[in-house]
Amino acid sequence: MTDTVTIQHGNGGREMHDLIHACIAPAIANAHTRFPLDSAQIHSGNLRCLFTTDSHVIDPLFFPGGDIGKLAVSGTANDILVAGGKPCYMSLALILEEGFALADLRRILQSVREEADRAGVLVVTGYTKVVEKGKGDKVYINTACLGTPMFDPLPHFNRIADSDRIIMTGSIADHGVAVMIQREGLTVEADIRSDAAALSPVMDALSAQGVVPHFMTDPTRGGVAAACNEIVEATDLGIVLLQDKLVIQPQVDVVCELLGLDPLVIPSEGRAILIVAAEDADKTLTALRDVAMARDAAIIGRVSKKQAKRVILETTAGTHVRVPMPYGVNLPRIC
Amino acid sequence: MTDTVTIQHGNGGREMHDLIHACIAPAIANAHTRFPLDSAQIHSGNLRCLFTTDSHVIDPLFFPGGDIGKLAVSGTANDILVAGGKPCYMSLALILEEGFALADLRRILQSVREEADRAGVLVVTGYTKVVEKGKGDKVYINTACLGTPMFDPLPHFNRIADSDRIIMTGSIADHGVAVMIQREGLTVEADIRSDAAALSPVMDALSAQGVVPHFMTDPTRGGVAAACNEIVEATDLGIVLLQDKLVIQPQVDVVCELLGLDPLVIPSEGRAILIVAAEDADKTLTALRDVAMARDAAIIGRVSKKQAKRVILETTAGTHVRVPMPYGVNLPRIC
Repeated sequence: MTDTVTIQHGNGGREMHDLIHACIAPAIANAHTRFPLDSAQIHSGNLRCLFTTDSHVIDPLFFPGGDIGKLAVSGTANDILVAGGKPCYMSLALILEEGFALADLRRILQSVREEADRAGVLVVTGYTKVVEKGKGDKVYINTACLGTPMFDPLPHFNRIADSDRIIMTGSIADHGVAVMIQREGLTVEADIRSDAAALSPVMDALSAQGVVPHFMTDPTRGGVAAACNEIVEATDLGIVLLQDKLVIQPQVDVVCELLGLDPLVIPSEGRAILIVAAEDADKTLTALRDVAMARDAAIIGRVSKKQAKRVILETTAGTHVRVPMPYGVNLPRIC
Repeated sequence: MTDTVTIQHGNGGREMHDLIHACIAPAIANAHTRFPLDSAQIHSGNLRCLFTTDSHVIDPLFFPGGDIGKLAVSGTANDILVAGGKPCYMSLALILEEGFALADLRRILQSVREEADRAGVLVVTGYTKVVEKGKGDKVYINTACLGTPMFDPLPHFNRIADSDRIIMTGSIADHGVAVMIQREGLTVEADIRSDAAALSPVMDALSAQGVVPHFMTDPTRGGVAAACNEIVEATDLGIVLLQDKLVIQPQVDVVCELLGLDPLVIPSEGRAILIVAAEDADKTLTALRDVAMARDAAIIGRVSKKQAKRVILETTAGTHVRVPMPYGVNLPRIC
């Protein structure tokens, strides 16, 4: 480990996990922390809720399909949603850089409000700080969120079992590719939009169908590769992904090819990975396909005891390839 | 109003209030927001709690009496405490700048842990983001906090009444002056230390004595002047402060004189302003003086219906001077 912070420490992959596990977690851990889970589960006296926080920094602030305001609400709401909670109350803390245009701030706050309405969450408290020019990047937004349990029991690593099915609620890598195109000023004919959105309709549909997922996560930083590797590291199980079942929009696939990027490590911001009992898989797909944002839902793999601690990609050619926890330069910095 | 963010927008004074009231509040306000209160009160179903957020940016990171880690815990815990809650659960979100020394990060996390232990709060969830060099300032820390009600009824602007007494739990301006000396590299013989600390022992003492304050606030950004002006703006009452009752440590007073600063606008980070019924004032002082961090507690003024919407300083010379909401260059940027 280096002795200073590097960009790789924020990549969602190996280096970030090492920093968190070697430096941050030991310093603050207590009986309530649930590394590597993103949210805390509070059950004490008459306080029963889920609690999480996310800081959002993104360049550019505005991109096809969203902006930092939408992301700040949906990203944090999604951490509660994939933990099995209904996001209810949110805080909004802004770090504004001197010189930032107030018109852009207003546009972003409008997005915050719209996405909060869509997610059914209320922004109830806030905070504003200003830093000198050159000490920020226009605006950083932290949101913390409180939710109430929606599934019983709540999803957890320890409920994942051999032969469970892995369902992805839609196409992968759209968010990361949309942001990268905008940031690098690439000229792309295709209409590639970020998938950023709160997963509330997805969870409502599952709940209405009586599906109780064993585990859920959202493949943000580090993409599907990081999300799946976190699961196998936290359990004694493995994961087999089926390449021909992964949904990648053709135009996204083309850009990834062009830039030499692996879609498996590119973030989504409006997708969930669901792990459900094999016998629940069809019911889950039926529920999902009625929801606009999940109409491309597919079973993309299965849990395998035999592959303990490994994520394996079964390729269209029939070969088996190890998918490692992404690291270093393989990971473009997107969110 | 300008069309870009200026440093004054973060000063805790007039410009910040204008930004929040003209731009931020209208965009996100709903039935649950309680401007200008720092924390939300949630009472819905079986969820009853207080919720707040603060982003902490400070230069230098380390100063006599504390560091950004201590401040991140105590500052946010204090928002819950002055709202009448017991801080219970906290989130910790870091924005790290590329190149920041991990040894400093470890030192800061150690402070987080120590202050959390002192405040009786558990850090239960976290988040880490890294930004490129030149897009941050070593480390920014956001903490959000959940608390449970400790006083019944909870303190609120609308409980403040004519002739209530205003009690300050200790000396003013220590934090701001300590940070300024360190930042400007001033050579000062005197030992001036930040007062930063969670107010938990103060609130425990009040609660044990059965004192139920009408209102509480902590004079952080913008100092006592901003805190008192927020009160008169939110009510139809006024405040009379007694200059000879304000406790200013001699060495702090000297530095303020030297730098031409008004101690009334300099932040404290471990003090509270309590507004209590006149008949509760003695009982309150007795309770406070048993607590180490509040041994200099004093009645510094009273609520006055006659002075509606004004903060007045009754000087040692017997004159009455208006204390305005601080603004612009009068306000050194400290926290």
